[in-house]
Amino acid sequence: MTPPEQELEYLGDPETSPLRHPGSSHSPPHLGPSEQGRKQRGVGSPYLFIQLNELLGSPQNQEWRETGRWMLFEEKLDLQARRWSSPHVPTLSLSSVWELRALLTTGLVLLDCPVQSLSELTEQVTRVESLNPEVRERLKLVLLQRPQHHMQPMCWSSPLPSSPSPFVPHPIHQLQSPLWQKLPPETEAAAVLVGELDFLTQRLGVFVHLSKPVVLGTLTEVPLPIRFVCIILGPPALGKGYHEMGRAAAVLLSDQLFRCSVCQASSPQDLVSAVDVFLEEVMVLPPGGGDLTERIPPSKCLSILHKRLPLQLQESKDSCNGNVNSKRDRHGYEHAPQAVSKELQRTGRLFGGLVQDIRRKAPWYLSDFLDALDVQSFSAILYIYLATITNAITFGGLLGDATDNIQGVLESFLGTAVAGSIFCFFAGQPLTILSSTGPVLVFERILFAFSRNHGLDYLPFRLWVGIWVAFFCLVLVATEASVLVRYFTRFTEEGFCALISLIFIYDAIGKMLSLTEAYPIYRPGLSEDTGFDPYGCLCYFPDTKGNMSLWKGQSPENKDAALRMVLGLANVSLLSPPECALQGGQPRGLGCHFVPDIAFFSLLLFFATFLCATILKNFKSSHFFPSKVRKVISDFSTVLAILLGCGLDASLGLSTPKLIVPSEFKPTHPGRRWLVPLFGANPWWLCLATALPALLMSILVFMDQQITAVILNRKEYQLQKGAGFHLDLFWVAMLMLMTSAFGLPWYVSTTVISLAHMDSLRRESETCVPGELPHFLGIREQRLTGLVVFILTGLSIFLAPGLKFIPMPVLYGIFFYMGMAALSSTQFSERVKLLLMPAKHQPDLLLLRHVPLSRIHLFTTVQLICLGLLWAVKSTAAAIVFPLMLLGLVGIRKALEWVFSPQELSWLDDPVREENEKKVQEEKVLELEFNPRRNNSEHGSL
Amino acid sequence: MTPPEQELEYLGDPETSPLRHPGSSHSPPHLGPSEQGRKQRGVGSPYLFIQLNELLGSPQNQEWRETGRWMLFEEKLDLQARRWSSPHVPTLSLSSVWELRALLTTGLVLLDCPVQSLSELTEQVTRVESLNPEVRERLKLVLLQRPQHHMQPMCWSSPLPSSPSPFVPHPIHQLQSPLWQKLPPETEAAAVLVGELDFLTQRLGVFVHLSKPVVLGTLTEVPLPIRFVCIILGPPALGKGYHEMGRAAAVLLSDQLFRCSVCQASSPQDLVSAVDVFLEEVMVLPPGGGDLTERIPPSKCLSILHKRLPLQLQESKDSCNGNVNSKRDRHGYEHAPQAVSKELQRTGRLFGGLVQDIRRKAPWYLSDFLDALDVQSFSAILYIYLATITNAITFGGLLGDATDNIQGVLESFLGTAVAGSIFCFFAGQPLTILSSTGPVLVFERILFAFSRNHGLDYLPFRLWVGIWVAFFCLVLVATEASVLVRYFTRFTEEGFCALISLIFIYDAIGKMLSLTEAYPIYRPGLSEDTGFDPYGCLCYFPDTKGNMSLWKGQSPENKDAALRMVLGLANVSLLSPPECALQGGQPRGLGCHFVPDIAFFSLLLFFATFLCATILKNFKSSHFFPSKVRKVISDFSTVLAILLGCGLDASLGLSTPKLIVPSEFKPTHPGRRWLVPLFGANPWWLCLATALPALLMSILVFMDQQITAVILNRKEYQLQKGAGFHLDLFWVAMLMLMTSAFGLPWYVSTTVISLAHMDSLRRESETCVPGELPHFLGIREQRLTGLVVFILTGLSIFLAPGLKFIPMPVLYGIFFYMGMAALSSTQFSERVKLLLMPAKHQPDLLLLRHVPLSRIHLFTTVQLICLGLLWAVKSTAAAIVFPLMLLGLVGIRKALEWVFSPQELSWLDDPVREENEKKVQEEKVLELEFNPRRNNSEHGSL
Repeated sequence: MTPPEQELEYLGDPETSPLRHPGSSHSPPHLGPSEQGRKQRGVGSPYLFIQLNELLGSPQNQEWRETGRWMLFEEKLDLQARRWSSPHVPTLSLSSVWELRALLTTGLVLLDCPVQSLSELTEQVTRVESLNPEVRERLKLVLLQRPQHHMQPMCWSSPLPSSPSPFVPHPIHQLQSPLWQKLPPETEAAAVLVGELDFLTQRLGVFVHLSKPVVLGTLTEVPLPIRFVCIILGPPALGKGYHEMGRAAAVLLSDQLFRCSVCQASSPQDLVSAVDVFLEEVMVLPPGGGDLTERIPPSKCLSILHKRLPLQLQESKDSCNGNVNSKRDRHGYEHAPQAVSKELQRTGRLFGGLVQDIRRKAPWYLSDFLDALDVQSFSAILYIYLATITNAITFGGLLGDATDNIQGVLESFLGTAVAGSIFCFFAGQPLTILSSTGPVLVFERILFAFSRNHGLDYLPFRLWVGIWVAFFCLVLVATEASVLVRYFTRFTEEGFCALISLIFIYDAIGKMLSLTEAYPIYRPGLSEDTGFDPYGCLCYFPDTKGNMSLWKGQSPENKDAALRMVLGLANVSLLSPPECALQGGQPRGLGCHFVPDIAFFSLLLFFATFLCATILKNFKSSHFFPSKVRKVISDFSTVLAILLGCGLDASLGLSTPKLIVPSEFKPTHPGRRWLVPLFGANPWWLCLATALPALLMSILVFMDQQITAVILNRKEYQLQKGAGFHLDLFWVAMLMLMTSAFGLPWYVSTTVISLAHMDSLRRESETCVPGELPHFLGIREQRLTGLVVFILTGLSIFLAPGLKFIPMPVLYGIFFYMGMAALSSTQFSERVKLLLMPAKHQPDLLLLRHVPLSRIHLFTTVQLICLGLLWAVKSTAAAIVFPLMLLGLVGIRKALEWVFSPQELSWLDDPVREENEKKVQEEKVLELEFNPRRNNSEHGSL
Repeated sequence: MTPPEQELEYLGDPETSPLRHPGSSHSPPHLGPSEQGRKQRGVGSPYLFIQLNELLGSPQNQEWRETGRWMLFEEKLDLQARRWSSPHVPTLSLSSVWELRALLTTGLVLLDCPVQSLSELTEQVTRVESLNPEVRERLKLVLLQRPQHHMQPMCWSSPLPSSPSPFVPHPIHQLQSPLWQKLPPETEAAAVLVGELDFLTQRLGVFVHLSKPVVLGTLTEVPLPIRFVCIILGPPALGKGYHEMGRAAAVLLSDQLFRCSVCQASSPQDLVSAVDVFLEEVMVLPPGGGDLTERIPPSKCLSILHKRLPLQLQESKDSCNGNVNSKRDRHGYEHAPQAVSKELQRTGRLFGGLVQDIRRKAPWYLSDFLDALDVQSFSAILYIYLATITNAITFGGLLGDATDNIQGVLESFLGTAVAGSIFCFFAGQPLTILSSTGPVLVFERILFAFSRNHGLDYLPFRLWVGIWVAFFCLVLVATEASVLVRYFTRFTEEGFCALISLIFIYDAIGKMLSLTEAYPIYRPGLSEDTGFDPYGCLCYFPDTKGNMSLWKGQSPENKDAALRMVLGLANVSLLSPPECALQGGQPRGLGCHFVPDIAFFSLLLFFATFLCATILKNFKSSHFFPSKVRKVISDFSTVLAILLGCGLDASLGLSTPKLIVPSEFKPTHPGRRWLVPLFGANPWWLCLATALPALLMSILVFMDQQITAVILNRKEYQLQKGAGFHLDLFWVAMLMLMTSAFGLPWYVSTTVISLAHMDSLRRESETCVPGELPHFLGIREQRLTGLVVFILTGLSIFLAPGLKFIPMPVLYGIFFYMGMAALSSTQFSERVKLLLMPAKHQPDLLLLRHVPLSRIHLFTTVQLICLGLLWAVKSTAAAIVFPLMLLGLVGIRKALEWVFSPQELSWLDDPVREENEKKVQEEKVLELEFNPRRNNSEHGSL
């Protein structure tokens, strides 16, 4: 059976077709100026809503019902369930397309038809020679019958009046469709009408292209101007033949290139050729390959749909891929993850980069505040504020441990607030959040140990280090050294990011374990060894005199006294061990050394907070509740997790360790003032000798700062206001000077919280077309959220009464969550997972299609070893060279170029490579498409 | 451009083709007896391995390389990554199929070609008129060149010797392919060879069908006999044209119907018609619909692939769907979930069903023990044993609470062991696990309360109830009442199953909460109210005499005495509260009332065990580690979770409540003997009055037993040895008599553990073809696993030293997990989830396509209300009528037939409906396919 053959016969001589339109005055002449005009007329709206109306019901009582609709994807009406299917990629049977093609070849084609109303259209389409007048009248009545759309569920089950009522427009009814609000403004419509009519003896196929789109009453469920009408009617036949032909027509119309061809067609043959061009490019699934009942879900980014759009329409959709204008040079793999942007071009003048940064950012300055006026900013502020104070508290605590409380939590709060606000006001990239970071903390710990071992006065020593670091950083700014960030590839970033994430995770777990030391768990085995039963703890006073003084004490002692009288004991009290010690007594009995319940309850709180934050964050991708509700829950996951933890804690009323917010404004260490003296007890030559550690510290600051900056300014975030690498570094240097002078902690950009900040400010498009996913529109770039966060951090010193209800285990849980989230977001962790997967079960990543698995594993292993080395160096005595090791990452990356081919590295070490590759393939497809001649000549060489 | 046209021209006159084979002696005559023979020859093996070899490399140094292979799905060689892609549904461009068709029309087609070796084949295929002798020789050399297969990675990167070496077979090399072990025994092969040759001036297409398949050396990577060879060679051209044509040929050959047509073809035209038939049935994806780089994964059950198999081959694949021979009558929705099987046909004789059951099961009796000999049984025994003793302990404890320890944990162990073993020996469905169940426990609690309120002697009262229940059950057996289980539809099952799951979950949480009462948590707020500081707890002795006696006590007192001397106190001790009370002292101080850490640690253990069991169970569907490792981990998830819990508990050494296993063999209650007296202190007429509660109890037993039996004997489990509804009920009645006489708990089948038992005995096929999922082969039906489980349960009374390390919270965690797993496995819980999902985000279930959402929600709501009512009745004073309520479920289901249409109910209330529907659709497709004439005539009416 060769269906193409029989249909192609008609094509040769279309005028002999039995259904030829008698008055084809509307079809334009084949040549002449009007054709020229049509070609310039363009392609109409890029959005077309296509509706399939079908004649259903018994032959006596037929009515039009909407059974399918198309925009980018197909939505089917499941008749029994009376609901729209989810949007899916339509699959057609090839034979239905052939049948449609045959019908179009022999049928009536009206191009540029100037109808104004449905009745006019009905007149036009029924003027077919082969129909006798009676049939023509009945046909008109059928076509004028009002269709039943799905959004009128009231009318759905009630039978229609048997006499087909003449068409009356009901625009009010049509506004009920929920689709109406969603459609893009310029959307046009097409109607496909199919059905079986027992008074017809031949199939009737009509295709109308309206010269001016016009609203044809309730033909479509939404009152859009109609551009195309396709009518397929015929005598009753078995099967779903008409339905499938209607679907084929709708799918054809949903193809933008086909519509372009139709708009530019001058004869029915052109229409048939357009079908052939369409068929040339369809993909074929072998019979049995796809499940008949399976609906192919729309693919993630609709990337290939672009290729069907004529070139002038491409740009409006380009934002989907997330890399506009990414003109990578094809041999640029040894360079940065993205091509050198103008922010990183060397000017060759002293401070040239800094001046350029200021010039670039100045025009945006006002908008940096106005752009923040959105509800989203509120959620971002709350989220980042909590993250920042969690960070300030934890790093404050760690720093206090490391420096004998010379810098404590109060210094941490104050420094964060002041440095952060100044940075947000003046920096080049105000989305950055300044904070104490793991690497800097490690280095400060080393410095303190050094100064203590050599009997130095720490703060003045540190002041000179700070002065030198600021000086070196200024030199780096002056010499435009930031252009070197080009060499910070994904390899370096991931190594650094993984290290910081591990520090987060390690600290969270370490802090939790230290809680079990602070609140020891009672173990029965322990008490048996030492010989005391654990239940008792008596506060024993050596003399009755000290005891007597308690009679005048506060309420706890009065209660105690009552007990003492009951027991008939004079020098024994049931005070808790700390209170007993405070009163001069001695706690005796092993029970004194155990604190019940707190350790395990803290563990419960820690895990509950972590799990709650993780689950709520992922709630976005579940199917429960409307997507807006899900988004809010997901955005506020950490806040909700903290609230849950606090509620759990408050409901049980246990004395878990709570957040200690300083209430008095003075340095934590009693022996120091705010301003640090320039020399103190140190010898004068130290101000020169500190240049050496300062050099190492400068490397660290530069890398820590700039890697975060590189990550934040990645092309995929589509930042519009540009970066400011030099300006940022300048301010970091200035703040370094200030914090050193006041003995506050040092601050650089922190990757994890800055990324969370960006993420909470993502703008996404509203979904317009069914099945389309929201597009990423960019980041809300402004200075206000950061500023408010840091002002709040400063105010938190006075907000102590409110914050002191937050249990520390909850904060550690959030800390743990942040580390895990940052670690799992890297491609590195994906590749580590691949190590554990048998090749057969690995996901179908583009990376795996292009790089041999052994090479991927080798690359991952190198990264793992580097990470292990960094961790080891950070933890051992050689820790002072740790910044050099970080710089070493760049060197190792360079050395890898001897091991891996450039092509492999471009896949393994390029963050935007996957998107680029898709782009390239699309371009190839486009190229082929717009050179159809070349394809033809190839076929001709057979 | 209309490619079909130009190719069809050649079809009309094949002899004018320029590439016509000069000696076409091998092509058989068009008519005559040989054609008859060919038609009977059949279709060859159902499995064909197809390999695509491509000429790659520079024109001077070309070599054959394998770039793709097909069985059911396509596997592509990703050249850069040097790995096979995962199996996926192939997509072709329509034009490549057309080009192939054109080439076959003009090319050389050898049908039934009797070649024996590759050189012979080379001779045959190069005998094309249009080739000059020199080209012919060069072509032969190219074809004889040894191809590079992917499983020889050594040779891969090394360049081949430049002179094409003559073909030498290396069967040893070929055995290295990992595919070789996996292929089904009768697999044949096909080779598709494509490439560009610069010495050719025209395209050369050759299709060879070998009359007898023969191994042609290393042409394919596995040394299979080759049935088809397709060669597509031509002059160099741009693009991937040849590759795509080769893929099209391979996909055509992977279609079994196409192969059938080729085997039965008698002329080249028949081959082209086969391509046309193939094209008739392909599905078309519109251009842009599918992502070019996306690979469509194989669908779950390959259900539609059946339709491509000729009828005689269908049966071998039918097992995939899980419902062999399920000939449902189309109007049978008001009946049982499955059609009435012969087990449930009424014989009309007294005990007729019982006799039939025994007759049916007797022949299997020996195999019931032999079939158990498999490693899988070991894992099943371990799993079910742990579940059974968990159940025995927990229900034992609950029953002890409910009956003032007249029946305790020892009775529970003993009864479970004896009743279970007897049942496994003699019952009709030995996969069933007997246990105390929630409903029976509830009823027993009611009975006990009644007997206590009326001053009755409980055990003799209970004995008479048991006698009557046994009698009623025997009556039900005699009258073959079990055939009524037909009315237990999914509605009833789900209501019952959800109720039992809720009882599991409720009991687990209740038990955990009761732990916090047993081990109270210290709250600071509490102590402040009552005025005592909590740290202290003194044991206060009223007189020194009692105190003095302690001097001679055990070691704790000696330690205590030392303390007392230190403190200078004579009548105070630091004994723990229970010990203090035991010694006659009085514990004073609020610290006495709190037990530190145990409650929170128990909670941690509970959640850790639950999460561990859940995560490990789901580990099967992760991608880490080989699938065998995953399966083991998943099967032993509960055991591993218990071990983890025990390890965690042991490592901390806290005195958490442990499993108490009785160590002495005597009734728990001191006031009773094993054998229950017939009357005891009760009046004689009670033996008649007990008939009334026994009637209610009989309803409960019948429903509880038979619903489990119906669920276990569902068609989807493909049980081969048949059910024994009557026999099972008979033994339940006998055991009821026995357990009543000895005062042991009553036992019926328990759904959750029985289903877990079945699940741990699932047999699945090894995967044979890439991309195919393992098929369900049935359940390992035998009596041994159950028997061993119950013998172990009995022995557990003596295994106390080993089991006493299991903390109770771990067991509650497992209990909780079992309830959650059972609850979430029902379609009911899926539908409850739908209530919370906006229609847009609901999954694409077949159910949702056929029943309106509001009707689904209504049905779910009715079920929820029924469940709420059952729970309420179970918990309140009206609990005695609770069995009647269960029976009411059947009535409500009947009443629903007035609310829902039969068609809706068939979707909502039929467990095997979804599979059936697919089946029906396939049958329709098959019908259409095997009546191609009817289709043609329809097309002809155009």
